[in-house]
Amino acid sequence: MSQYFADLQPITFEGRDSTNPLAFRHYDATAMLGDRTMAEHLRFAVCYWHNFVWDGSDPFGGQTFDRPWFPADTMDQARQKADAAFEMFRILGVPYFCFHDHDVRPEGDTLAESHERLNEIADYFEQKMEDGGQKLLWGTANMFSNRRYMSGAATNPDPDVFAYCASTVKACMDVTHRLHGENYVLWGGREGYESLLNTDLDRELEQMGRFLSMVVEYKHKIGFKGAILIEPKPQEPTKHQYDYDVATVYGFLKRFGLEDEVKVNVEQGHAILAGHSFEHELAMARTLGIFGSIDMNRNDYQSGWDTDQFPNSPGEAALAYYEVLRAGGFTTGGTNFDAKLRRQSLDAEDLIAAHVGGMDICARGLISAHAMIEDDALEGPRRVRYAGWEGEAAQAMLAKGATLDGIAADAEARDVNPQPVSGAQEKLENIVNRYL
Amino acid sequence: MSQYFADLQPITFEGRDSTNPLAFRHYDATAMLGDRTMAEHLRFAVCYWHNFVWDGSDPFGGQTFDRPWFPADTMDQARQKADAAFEMFRILGVPYFCFHDHDVRPEGDTLAESHERLNEIADYFEQKMEDGGQKLLWGTANMFSNRRYMSGAATNPDPDVFAYCASTVKACMDVTHRLHGENYVLWGGREGYESLLNTDLDRELEQMGRFLSMVVEYKHKIGFKGAILIEPKPQEPTKHQYDYDVATVYGFLKRFGLEDEVKVNVEQGHAILAGHSFEHELAMARTLGIFGSIDMNRNDYQSGWDTDQFPNSPGEAALAYYEVLRAGGFTTGGTNFDAKLRRQSLDAEDLIAAHVGGMDICARGLISAHAMIEDDALEGPRRVRYAGWEGEAAQAMLAKGATLDGIAADAEARDVNPQPVSGAQEKLENIVNRYL
Amino acid sequence: MSQYFADLQPITFEGRDSTNPLAFRHYDATAMLGDRTMAEHLRFAVCYWHNFVWDGSDPFGGQTFDRPWFPADTMDQARQKADAAFEMFRILGVPYFCFHDHDVRPEGDTLAESHERLNEIADYFEQKMEDGGQKLLWGTANMFSNRRYMSGAATNPDPDVFAYCASTVKACMDVTHRLHGENYVLWGGREGYESLLNTDLDRELEQMGRFLSMVVEYKHKIGFKGAILIEPKPQEPTKHQYDYDVATVYGFLKRFGLEDEVKVNVEQGHAILAGHSFEHELAMARTLGIFGSIDMNRNDYQSGWDTDQFPNSPGEAALAYYEVLRAGGFTTGGTNFDAKLRRQSLDAEDLIAAHVGGMDICARGLISAHAMIEDDALEGPRRVRYAGWEGEAAQAMLAKGATLDGIAADAEARDVNPQPVSGAQEKLENIVNRYL
Amino acid sequence: MSQYFADLQPITFEGRDSTNPLAFRHYDATAMLGDRTMAEHLRFAVCYWHNFVWDGSDPFGGQTFDRPWFPADTMDQARQKADAAFEMFRILGVPYFCFHDHDVRPEGDTLAESHERLNEIADYFEQKMEDGGQKLLWGTANMFSNRRYMSGAATNPDPDVFAYCASTVKACMDVTHRLHGENYVLWGGREGYESLLNTDLDRELEQMGRFLSMVVEYKHKIGFKGAILIEPKPQEPTKHQYDYDVATVYGFLKRFGLEDEVKVNVEQGHAILAGHSFEHELAMARTLGIFGSIDMNRNDYQSGWDTDQFPNSPGEAALAYYEVLRAGGFTTGGTNFDAKLRRQSLDAEDLIAAHVGGMDICARGLISAHAMIEDDALEGPRRVRYAGWEGEAAQAMLAKGATLDGIAADAEARDVNPQPVSGAQEKLENIVNRYL
Ligand SMILES: [Co+2]
Ligand SMILES: [Co+2]
Ligand SMILES: [Co+2]
Ligand SMILES: [Co+2]
Ligand SMILES: [Co+2]
Ligand SMILES: [Co+2]
Ligand SMILES: [Co+2]
Ligand SMILES: [Co+2]
Repeated sequence: MSQYFADLQPITFEGRDSTNPLAFRHYDATAMLGDRTMAEHLRFAVCYWHNFVWDGSDPFGGQTFDRPWFPADTMDQARQKADAAFEMFRILGVPYFCFHDHDVRPEGDTLAESHERLNEIADYFEQKMEDGGQKLLWGTANMFSNRRYMSGAATNPDPDVFAYCASTVKACMDVTHRLHGENYVLWGGREGYESLLNTDLDRELEQMGRFLSMVVEYKHKIGFKGAILIEPKPQEPTKHQYDYDVATVYGFLKRFGLEDEVKVNVEQGHAILAGHSFEHELAMARTLGIFGSIDMNRNDYQSGWDTDQFPNSPGEAALAYYEVLRAGGFTTGGTNFDAKLRRQSLDAEDLIAAHVGGMDICARGLISAHAMIEDDALEGPRRVRYAGWEGEAAQAMLAKGATLDGIAADAEARDVNPQPVSGAQEKLENIVNRYL
Repeated sequence: MSQYFADLQPITFEGRDSTNPLAFRHYDATAMLGDRTMAEHLRFAVCYWHNFVWDGSDPFGGQTFDRPWFPADTMDQARQKADAAFEMFRILGVPYFCFHDHDVRPEGDTLAESHERLNEIADYFEQKMEDGGQKLLWGTANMFSNRRYMSGAATNPDPDVFAYCASTVKACMDVTHRLHGENYVLWGGREGYESLLNTDLDRELEQMGRFLSMVVEYKHKIGFKGAILIEPKPQEPTKHQYDYDVATVYGFLKRFGLEDEVKVNVEQGHAILAGHSFEHELAMARTLGIFGSIDMNRNDYQSGWDTDQFPNSPGEAALAYYEVLRAGGFTTGGTNFDAKLRRQSLDAEDLIAAHVGGMDICARGLISAHAMIEDDALEGPRRVRYAGWEGEAAQAMLAKGATLDGIAADAEARDVNPQPVSGAQEKLENIVNRYL
Repeated sequence: MSQYFADLQPITFEGRDSTNPLAFRHYDATAMLGDRTMAEHLRFAVCYWHNFVWDGSDPFGGQTFDRPWFPADTMDQARQKADAAFEMFRILGVPYFCFHDHDVRPEGDTLAESHERLNEIADYFEQKMEDGGQKLLWGTANMFSNRRYMSGAATNPDPDVFAYCASTVKACMDVTHRLHGENYVLWGGREGYESLLNTDLDRELEQMGRFLSMVVEYKHKIGFKGAILIEPKPQEPTKHQYDYDVATVYGFLKRFGLEDEVKVNVEQGHAILAGHSFEHELAMARTLGIFGSIDMNRNDYQSGWDTDQFPNSPGEAALAYYEVLRAGGFTTGGTNFDAKLRRQSLDAEDLIAAHVGGMDICARGLISAHAMIEDDALEGPRRVRYAGWEGEAAQAMLAKGATLDGIAADAEARDVNPQPVSGAQEKLENIVNRYL
Repeated sequence: MSQYFADLQPITFEGRDSTNPLAFRHYDATAMLGDRTMAEHLRFAVCYWHNFVWDGSDPFGGQTFDRPWFPADTMDQARQKADAAFEMFRILGVPYFCFHDHDVRPEGDTLAESHERLNEIADYFEQKMEDGGQKLLWGTANMFSNRRYMSGAATNPDPDVFAYCASTVKACMDVTHRLHGENYVLWGGREGYESLLNTDLDRELEQMGRFLSMVVEYKHKIGFKGAILIEPKPQEPTKHQYDYDVATVYGFLKRFGLEDEVKVNVEQGHAILAGHSFEHELAMARTLGIFGSIDMNRNDYQSGWDTDQFPNSPGEAALAYYEVLRAGGFTTGGTNFDAKLRRQSLDAEDLIAAHVGGMDICARGLISAHAMIEDDALEGPRRVRYAGWEGEAAQAMLAKGATLDGIAADAEARDVNPQPVSGAQEKLENIVNRYL
């Protein structure tokens, strides 16, 4: 067992009045909200990369974190890392975790050795998961850090990289499958371009479409029941990332006939980078039928890069979970903290406290969202606003057979002169604030 | 004839060494570039709204421009305005113009009266077009200025607004058709939302899809041969506009089965607002098969709103026309200046000088772009970069029947270890600069 | 008395559990927080321009609001407008209001007539203020809407505009003085440039410095005891506004020796446009000794223009009032809602509800901020973090006489090897959330 | 001698028609422009950090560049690195270079050892500089990469870090002085904050002011004749950097009485991040009297982080050098390429080609700028625009003794009614384009 968190006890729920920085004030895992417990609603996951791999470096400075398992370039250190990780999962009481291949084992000298090592760690995970009861929310492959991916993974100008990716994704899907992962995620960190001048957009989009189609086929072949998820992001590391936002991913899926096979994992910070609110991206995913899972974090509104901070706004969390609930809640998805400490937050306790705060904000948001739905606080006014569309004549305009000239003739005959009605946005905002 | 431009003579081409501010230095309409004249390549259009309707006001100040036809709330003033407009087209020697219904006639008290007035002005235009030889690049309907559209046009919560829009678009399509317009454009200025809290995204997107489908049907019904174009914009006036960018519009078209019926009119300023370069949006439109036309202008890179300035960067123009040429050049589309004077540019001469500068920058960009293509300056290196994909084994990976595990097995058997190759971006940028 | 708000009663405090949309849930004017009532802490003001002048237009559409006093181009309508304004102040129970000359009276044909009209309305205000007990937080001159200001006010290339501004500001200061205004504000909406190409930066900054110096001298001449405030904004309407942000204004004041005479009125939305958080600008004003007053509103984080929305974030309000309290609270300043309805919010009730929500969010923020200070929740950890600087040797390094080489020699002698300590940012963020 | 660039010959000027990617087309070092050669105008410098230290890593991926001197953690490799660096300077024919201590030698175990190593490398440089004729444009200290600086350098909560910085800056100033560096630069990469919650703004700004004062005193003590330069940047790596932009730095200097002692080194990319154009920052530095030097690069207008790309816009370069020339040209300053390759540009030749392109763009910009000044192309219209201010009455308004009420009385007596005059921005933009 890892000694890294030796001073820390499992976090418990102490209620809103607690001033204990290492207690939950809102997240009461077994409390019911409607027909599910809070744990079932939120399905929290801790990510491996930010917590156990990242060393605190940024583009202007090196390592700030001392972790006993660094540099983690041996299998022994990989196991130490896993010990610490599962110890942290236990302390936080989270039911799920997520990882890339690259996070959990040092790369081997060959593809085969890399896969062996991945499988060896998976054995280690299996035991730990059985012992601790944690489950895998999703697995994924890191196809952006190594220099071989510098010009893209499936979209690389070199077909050997495409082949390398096929082998890598297959290995990661296999491991995800045997660990009973509930989803498999693809984030195309280098699938995009740094410059249009050296990029063959036509080829690259075709490559990406073909690759994803084969991933879907392989999922069915091995009987993986989880969802395949794409995580949209507009840019960073590349200047342009093909999976720009939810609407862009939808168009891509439609183009390759995959819209019923693939869903999205929506990240708050990526929504912001794409010029959207988080709730926008979630609502768009719902309405397009591709809502899958969320990466919870936040972006600094004054920064133009991906800060991956821990969420801390009650209002933003409420609106996010409101859209999750409107989408029917999570099925295979969940709430993964794709969030990292600030690089000055050096201590083991910071790792725990940050997650405690994040889980609490999510729970607080969920509680607000659930109450708004119970009270019909927003849906009531929304129904009233669009009530005119429930009439027969209105419906007929949207039905098959309606024509532009037919509707036009009717409008002219009636000399329609529509009068605007207040949108009452401020009142609705005030209502939301009542629930925070 | 309008006296507004009485002091100004038709603009002529004087060559690069001219210092005459009212002469073309690059745009030589009849000069050949490849198999087309510059005029045929560029297909310039002047827009009605910025030049003849806008009065110089901005959110913090009122009218600055004095135009003799203001306030243009009588049909007589509408004709004066048309006189000035066609006089300006003549001075500039542009072959095309574009307009909204709202630009060219005062709205009537009823739908019927509005349409009558539109037709009356269309009669006036017909005569002028015959006299001056100008053609209509596209017509469109202004469904965003009047307060009835404050909550959307086709996406309005009130079905009567939808009906009103049907009548309006039909009237504008009819007029565009009889004026032999080469395209019909839809820009959804209010199709979007100010707040998700009062918005029914599901309904609104359905309404928008149905409306567009009926527009397409109506086009075929009346035998209009021009293209139906959507103009993407991410926001402003609304917080979120449904036609966010080219990729979003593509997904929307696919969703409603309209991807072969509708193309895009791409605006530089809107690309910037959406977080893209202009050339990105053009390349994306090409690769998705929906490239239609362009609204040429520029955005201020330090402003977050739509400044609609006249283009003035040789490099940006070169890259834009490079993508236009790669898309095969314009068919029904063209180069419309959706650009307006700064509100301090008060004079008639400013209107002319701004367009002269804009046309010259476009011509200069086209000349650069054409030469780069002739010289294979960028396409040569691009082909080399992706040459690996031309091999049989590589092609097989993309072909039907290829499988993830099949490719993986092969990659592992070969123990592929791809080595990165320089992307040489800076060299390509230097090459472009040689052509500016 | 205005009938515009005839259906609405004065807003009362009903406590957190109230669901009445027209009641305060947090703002209890007479409740004590420390040694002041909430009303004394917050010093709420309603602004004239957004509520009684703006007609709902935006750059893409015209008037949406119907107000009985529109178009307010007669003195009679100006008085109707004042009746409605004071009626609204009474319903909201706000102690203060703010106005521009341009907001309250139609401009006359001459400077003299404009000033007469201003004074006539000031008479009308005096009576109303006496009757209702409202006070003037600040007065100001609108030197940006009229076309004469299109190229700047005090920074105009035309010296007659400078003279015109002197007359205008003098008249507005005189009126502010006799209405016992507690501050006089200058917002340089057009003091800046649209293009550097036609701008003489050297002259314009000199003109602005001289003008401000004369304003300060005039204040003393007439015995005005209120504060002179500059309101920073980075851009919009101009591309660059000289009073970019708090730090820029500070440098400008230092340059002209005015740093003890002039303070800042900080607006949330302008902070965001300048790339700062609101709390940053407030903290900077405090530390530079120029904190004056606040314009409360919010910006849309996904928009690049000045949306002037009503504030609605408990967390942002808490951090803002935290900085206000750290600055010692308001003296002459206060909380002015420089916030406007969305243009779809058509009704009189929307005006009231929006302010009720805004006032409540501010009160909620103040309560949180006050409690954090009472509990030493943030200041305690901050003192600990910098405690090393309290030592004698540390203080000596900052004292006169310390030298770089002296400190260097000592550091080398001691071979200092400083070890980083966790910044614990996430824990502090969690603490803040406990207070929301 | 380094073999790293063994295949490459010194770059020569071949004129505009050259298609040789490794030749200058515009930069003709000895050609006269006015009274200086192009080399004397531009004073090019190559930076050490991006070219010889950075390994191609970004926040999402590791090393891509193979350089024979990596990892450069021995003095032997440091010398190999220097060999390559001076070889590159020679090939490019640049007269200057710039470096941080951290770039040129591995840090020692103690402060003393670090300084020894720095001096040892300085010896090595001295010889090379004598051999090759290169000079040091500026030296600087890296006080942001090591974890000891994670919470700031001079603004650190730990006074030992302040002391450590004093020793470090002293050592770097000493070395800069003995290498006859023409400037010493301070860039406060970590002087700022990640979160206001844990930051004592009052203390930190005081610390920074004191530190800079001591730097200035030390400069005089050792007789260093070069300029002390601050390099503004708004953010990244920190959320807020104290030296936000030129205007902010000016205010800071005024606060500490250093405005005659310290100037600015303005970087294009940092201007963009701060919401300004490069020419704005340069013009502001000139008008405030603190123009020093430039870091030439460019930012991606669609990215929100510091991309440090090589400049490639003829228009931007022209406007930048236009402001440099208006400021009187460089004295101690110069054109340092603070620009890095894209991480996919792997080859030694890419390093050279990128600089060749950058130098050529600067030369091209300079030529355009110089011609605009010779022709009075922009200054002529500017003088005309402000000519009214040359009148006696106008000047009197700006002179001592003028009063607000005096000017007001005169304006009212004259009933001034200023009429706006066109700002003619588009015409001026067209003029600029004539020179590109
Ligand atoms: Co993520
Ligand atoms: Co992220
Ligand atoms: Co457009
Ligand atoms: Co536009
Ligand atoms: Co304000
Ligand atoms: Co504002
Ligand atoms: Co720099
Ligand atoms: Co930089």
